[in-house]
Amino acid sequence: MELKGKVVVAQGGGPTAVINQSLVGVALEARKFLQVSRVYGAVHGLTGILEEDFYDLTQETKHNLEQVAKTPSSALLSTRYKPDEKYCREIFKVLKAHDARYFFYIGGNDSSAAVSIINNEAKKSDYEFRAIHIPKTIDNDLVLNDHTPGYGSAARFVAQAFMGANLDNRALPGVYIGVVMGRHAGFLVGASAIAQKYPDDGPHLIYFPEKPFNRKKFLKEVKQVYDKYGRCVVAVSEGIQDDKGVPIATKLCKCIEKDAYGNVQLSSSGSLGDVLASYVRENLPIKRVRSDTFGYLQRSFLGCVSDIDQYEAREVGEKAVQYAIWHNRDGSIAIERTGFYSVDYKLVNLEDIGGKTRLMPDEFINSEANNVTDAFKFYVRPLLGSGLHTPHRIRAPKPGKLLRNGS
Amino acid sequence: MELKGKVVVAQGGGPTAVINQSLVGVALEARKFLQVSRVYGAVHGLTGILEEDFYDLTQETKHNLEQVAKTPSSALLSTRYKPDEKYCREIFKVLKAHDARYFFYIGGNDSSAAVSIINNEAKKSDYEFRAIHIPKTIDNDLVLNDHTPGYGSAARFVAQAFMGANLDNRALPGVYIGVVMGRHAGFLVGASAIAQKYPDDGPHLIYFPEKPFNRKKFLKEVKQVYDKYGRCVVAVSEGIQDDKGVPIATKLCKCIEKDAYGNVQLSSSGSLGDVLASYVRENLPIKRVRSDTFGYLQRSFLGCVSDIDQYEAREVGEKAVQYAIWHNRDGSIAIERTGFYSVDYKLVNLEDIGGKTRLMPDEFINSEANNVTDAFKFYVRPLLGSGLHTPHRIRAPKPGKLLRNGS
Repeated sequence: MELKGKVVVAQGGGPTAVINQSLVGVALEARKFLQVSRVYGAVHGLTGILEEDFYDLTQETKHNLEQVAKTPSSALLSTRYKPDEKYCREIFKVLKAHDARYFFYIGGNDSSAAVSIINNEAKKSDYEFRAIHIPKTIDNDLVLNDHTPGYGSAARFVAQAFMGANLDNRALPGVYIGVVMGRHAGFLVGASAIAQKYPDDGPHLIYFPEKPFNRKKFLKEVKQVYDKYGRCVVAVSEGIQDDKGVPIATKLCKCIEKDAYGNVQLSSSGSLGDVLASYVRENLPIKRVRSDTFGYLQRSFLGCVSDIDQYEAREVGEKAVQYAIWHNRDGSIAIERTGFYSVDYKLVNLEDIGGKTRLMPDEFINSEANNVTDAFKFYVRPLLGSGLHTPHRIRAPKPGKLLRNGS
Repeated sequence: MELKGKVVVAQGGGPTAVINQSLVGVALEARKFLQVSRVYGAVHGLTGILEEDFYDLTQETKHNLEQVAKTPSSALLSTRYKPDEKYCREIFKVLKAHDARYFFYIGGNDSSAAVSIINNEAKKSDYEFRAIHIPKTIDNDLVLNDHTPGYGSAARFVAQAFMGANLDNRALPGVYIGVVMGRHAGFLVGASAIAQKYPDDGPHLIYFPEKPFNRKKFLKEVKQVYDKYGRCVVAVSEGIQDDKGVPIATKLCKCIEKDAYGNVQLSSSGSLGDVLASYVRENLPIKRVRSDTFGYLQRSFLGCVSDIDQYEAREVGEKAVQYAIWHNRDGSIAIERTGFYSVDYKLVNLEDIGGKTRLMPDEFINSEANNVTDAFKFYVRPLLGSGLHTPHRIRAPKPGKLLRNGS
């Protein structure tokens, strides 16, 4: 009883460095099955389905697909549009008209909710249809997953950025504040800790959206580090909140946008970094205070990618097709960690993923809420992949002084 | 008549990704000569000399030096202190007390001026002394050089960043503005043009410090691109100026710092990008407008380096030692381009480098002053090195529409 028809695959939400691995995993795996007549890629996510704007990926060369797989950002282009039930009914109509029997949507938890609605439409009209959500998010905030594809590469970018920023700050001392993406979850900002190679390496302080950010505490901690090392590197999540849950960025910034999901747009401005830097400059006797907002670089920089992340992103795409076609099941693919370091995949219920946000567990954040624990480093290091460069220092002896008598 | 004594090497100014190649080039080459008793590395540039704070690099392992060479930022640490004649006299006293006969200073044009003053002190007191300036700057603004070590790797970062930003902007269309370092010279922002792979790839507009920036012209050009492609990626130099030579950043930003050389500090704030983004948002009917300021990432990101840049940075260090010890000459090492792509090195007068700034020649900027020419692409591409990733697109055919009748 094979379910014959087309495969439709789409990409939603913010791009990642490896989201095209999942796309190519779906396309190449689906192309193996005789019951799959075509593999369509919808352009700009669900919008492409509604507008019947598809690529026929059956007619794409394997060689070009492999090149696309290595390219960051969504090759099918993306959307942030939030579909309601009416919109999903229209989408279902198109899928049915094209004899689509398998639907794969690569995205975050908002995308998994859309898959769920479309799947329910199919069930209501007794149309045989398999729908699977394929996880991706640089924030690493999907529940029931050890981690999500896209996170490892973004984490690698953040780690490498802070390695460089730490070296720069050591050469020309002062206070450096780097603002990292992560609306609710601190996994990405936490990855900066991999830059802490030598005992005095930064980031010396890391602030998470999960723990209330207090400006006085921040100032005190910057001063402590500066007094000890003559410099201070700080990693701050864009999503840091006060003790009432109000994002610090919204308290400071005049122009706040929200996306279609009601998510506050925090990444379009360097103002959080600038304001924290001004705060340090005005309250501590430190002249050189700098801030950078990593912005979009961290999710689509070309040439900074974790091989582990690429590999797993490819596999979640392949597994999705296998669950749908071999096992005739719907759901969301999730990554389980099985060893140090190995993973396996399982299928979980769509309803258990959508609308939920996974946060950093307490054992990953230190008791002062200003750094990660070793447990987090153990968790995150394998995800960054192989071949990670690390800095080296000169450790030659220093000769005696001739004029200053050792002063 | 061999000049026997110590070698002192130091690093000044902003770090680069390959400045330690030059340091290690000096150290390893100098260690070969019998007349060199020790190779000292001064900590924090000239400050380390004044304070007799040296590493004895003769006692560093070759293996560790090779690891340090691959590490970005200044391994000897740096300084932005601007020495006057009195300071340089004190420095000369220390050099003399330590029997230093060879001095190598790796830095930009400000550093070459310091080498010149110290060398004049030696001449005045008839102390046999060789002093060579070794070029580095990510801005690529040293005169008499085809290009400078450090530029190629920073240019590679900028190119890769815009490749990613362009893909991101294509997936989720809107206006994206990336602000790139470069106080006076547009070489670094120009490197963003290497991201223009497919005909509609951004950056669609590039703005240089060399050409007056006019906000109305900017707005008109953004609109033209957006009308054509439904999106627009803009690369802006932090140093863009109005027609009176006033930096746009200083017109907009409240808190402007100057360094010891009187150089305006443009990199400590995301405000230029934010203000340009607001300007687009307020004047054009485009909802999604984003800006990133690349900041310190572009000069010390770990793991983004040009192999050509590494190789040349190593060679300028080696050549400096050879000019000083084999040829008994003072001066500044300069890179000449001899082919496509090959280089050689020459020694130029210190006085011809210090205090001068090289700008983008007119043939590298298009007539509309909003993009580079092919001549610039021909110039810059080899400097970015080998193994540069480039993006790939899906180019599969699109099937016909069933419900919308090709609308």
